[in-house]
Amino acid sequence: MTANRRFLLTRRPHGTPVREDFSFVEQAVPHAPEGGFVVRNCYASLDPAQRGWMDDAPSYMPPIPLGDAVRASTIGVIAESRSPDFQVGDWVMGLNALEDYSVGVTGGFTNKVDISQVDSPSRFLSAMGAVGLTAYFGLTEVAKPKPGETLLVSGAAGAVGSAVGQIGKILGARVIGIAGGPGKCRRLIEDYGFDEAIDYKGKSVEQLAAEIRAVAPGGVHVLFENVGGDVMDAALLNLAKYARIVLCGLISEYNSPEKIGVRNLWQVLAQQATLYGYLIMDYAPRFAEGGAVMAGWMAQGRLRIDEDVQEGLENTYDVFMRLFTGANTGKLVLKIADGL
Amino acid sequence: MTANRRFLLTRRPHGTPVREDFSFVEQAVPHAPEGGFVVRNCYASLDPAQRGWMDDAPSYMPPIPLGDAVRASTIGVIAESRSPDFQVGDWVMGLNALEDYSVGVTGGFTNKVDISQVDSPSRFLSAMGAVGLTAYFGLTEVAKPKPGETLLVSGAAGAVGSAVGQIGKILGARVIGIAGGPGKCRRLIEDYGFDEAIDYKGKSVEQLAAEIRAVAPGGVHVLFENVGGDVMDAALLNLAKYARIVLCGLISEYNSPEKIGVRNLWQVLAQQATLYGYLIMDYAPRFAEGGAVMAGWMAQGRLRIDEDVQEGLENTYDVFMRLFTGANTGKLVLKIADGL
Repeated sequence: MTANRRFLLTRRPHGTPVREDFSFVEQAVPHAPEGGFVVRNCYASLDPAQRGWMDDAPSYMPPIPLGDAVRASTIGVIAESRSPDFQVGDWVMGLNALEDYSVGVTGGFTNKVDISQVDSPSRFLSAMGAVGLTAYFGLTEVAKPKPGETLLVSGAAGAVGSAVGQIGKILGARVIGIAGGPGKCRRLIEDYGFDEAIDYKGKSVEQLAAEIRAVAPGGVHVLFENVGGDVMDAALLNLAKYARIVLCGLISEYNSPEKIGVRNLWQVLAQQATLYGYLIMDYAPRFAEGGAVMAGWMAQGRLRIDEDVQEGLENTYDVFMRLFTGANTGKLVLKIADGL
Repeated sequence: MTANRRFLLTRRPHGTPVREDFSFVEQAVPHAPEGGFVVRNCYASLDPAQRGWMDDAPSYMPPIPLGDAVRASTIGVIAESRSPDFQVGDWVMGLNALEDYSVGVTGGFTNKVDISQVDSPSRFLSAMGAVGLTAYFGLTEVAKPKPGETLLVSGAAGAVGSAVGQIGKILGARVIGIAGGPGKCRRLIEDYGFDEAIDYKGKSVEQLAAEIRAVAPGGVHVLFENVGGDVMDAALLNLAKYARIVLCGLISEYNSPEKIGVRNLWQVLAQQATLYGYLIMDYAPRFAEGGAVMAGWMAQGRLRIDEDVQEGLENTYDVFMRLFTGANTGKLVLKIADGL
C-alpha cells in the first residue's frame, strides 16, 4: 500500500453524527519513529463509547482532536518496527484509530496477541477484547450476582449485554434482558439463553416498569445498565433493597445534546443501592486471565459471542451508525484488511 | 390532658405542601394496648424526609396513610404502660407522629434514652439522633474521606450538612460547602469551620461547576449529596477519579411533581465513581456508639450542632415549611411539651 486511508473527525457532532462531521482522506503511510512501530490495522472495534470521545466534554479520555482519525481499538500486524519488542509480522492489539496504518510506541497501549488461539483475529475485539471482558469483569468483580439473584440487563442484545446475560446465567442468576423489538427479544431467549426478554419500544417508563415488575416481583438485585434514560428509569423503579448497579454505558444519550440522565435517582437512595461507574480500563492487566475463562466457556458451548463484521474502511460512517439505528446485533467490527 | 391533638395528612401534596393538605384535630387520648404503652411526645423532629413519606410512591417506608398523623421521630415520656419494659416517666425516643400522644409496642422503634447526659432532650433528635448520626456514619462508614482529600457537601448549612462538614474537618479532609445565600455561606466558614463556601443561588449549572472547580482544582474525592438537581449536576462535573458519592437526600425535588434526578450521570461512569444510596436506619443498632463519639467532640468544642427549636403542635405546618423556604438553620425541632 502506498496510501494511508484515514477516517477523520472534522467537526464535533451535534446530536446524531452526520456524514459531514467526518472526512475520509488518503495520506502518506507513516514511518516508525525511533523506538516505535507502525501497525497495519486489520480489524477495528466500533463501539458506542467512540461517540462520547467525539464530544468536547469532560470524560475519562481526552476528546478526539479535530482533524485527527477517530480513535478505535484495533487488531493488526506490525508493518515496520524500530522497537526491539515488536517484529514485523507480529499480531498486536492496541488503541489506535480508524485508518490503515497507525503509529505506536513501546510502553503504550499495544500488546502482542496469539491469533493461533482463535478462529478469527476479530475475537480479540469481541469475546477476548474490551467488550467481552467488560461483561466478564463487570459481573465477576463489580456486581457479583449470587446464584438465584435477579440480574437485569439493558441493551441486552448488544455486544456487552448479550455477554452479560450469558455470564449471569453461568454464575447462577436469573436473567432478564431489555432490548428493542421482537426480533432482538427472541434472540435473547433462543440464542443467548436469557430467562426473560422485554421489548422497550413504544412503552412509557411506567409501562416498562410494570413489565419488569411482572417478571421480577422480588426486585432486581443486579442492574447492568448500558442504556440510561427511560429504560434505566424503569429499571430503577424495580430495585431490590441493596441492589448493585453497574453503570457501564448510557447509549440512549450519546447522541442527545441535552442530557436526560436519570430521573428516578431517588430509588437508589430508597433501596440503599450502590451504583458503580464502571470502565474496563482498570482491568487491562487481567485481560489474559479473563480471556482464558471466556475462551473456556465458549469451547464448552456455554457462551456465544456473535460478531457483526462489516467490511471496508471507506464504509466506516455507515457501519458506525449501525450502533445507533438498532441495526447491529453482536459485536460490531470493521474489517480493514486481511494482513500485511 | 384530656385531648390528643394530632397533625393529620388528609390529602397527598402536589408539589409544595399547602395548609389544606393537612388538618389539625383533637381526638381522645389513646390507652396503652396489652404489651404496649403511650408516649407523651415532647419534641418532634422535622425533616425533609417527611415530605417524601407523604407521597404515594415506592420508597423505603410505606407512605403515611391518608387521615393518619404525620410520621415523625419524637422524644417523650411514657405516660401509660402495659409493658414490663417501659415504666411511666421513662424518657424514650421512637418513630411516632406529630401528635401529643402516640401508642407504641415493645419491640418497635422505641428505645429508652438517658436525658441526664444532655442539656436538652432535643439533643436526641439532633446531634445524637438520626440527623447527627447520618452525618457521622455516612462519613465514617460509607465515604471514609482520607486526610487531605476534598469533601464537597451540598445543603451544607442544613442539619446534616453542617455536621458532615465539621466531621469531615475532624477526619482531616478539606471541606467545601454549598448553601443558599451569603448569610448561610458566612455561617459555614465562621460557625462550622468549612474551608470554602459557595452560594448556589442564581447560578447556572455551568457557573456553579466553575466555582467548585476554582476551589477544588484537583476534583472532589467525596461528595456528600443532600440536594440533587442543579447543585448535584454541578458537583458531578468536578468529580475526582474514583470519587465516592454519598446520596443522602434530594431536597431540591421533594416538592417537585416532576422528578429531574441528575443529568450528568455520565460523569459517575467517566470518573469511575461509586454512588451509595444511604439511609441511616441500618446503623440504628450503633446509635449509642456514634452518639458517644459525637458527644465527645461536642464536649471538646470541635463539633457544633445548632438546633432551631420552634414551639407548638398547633404551628406544625408553618414550622415544617421552614425546611423548604430556606428559613431554618440548624436541626429543626418542634417542641410539643415539657414532660408529663
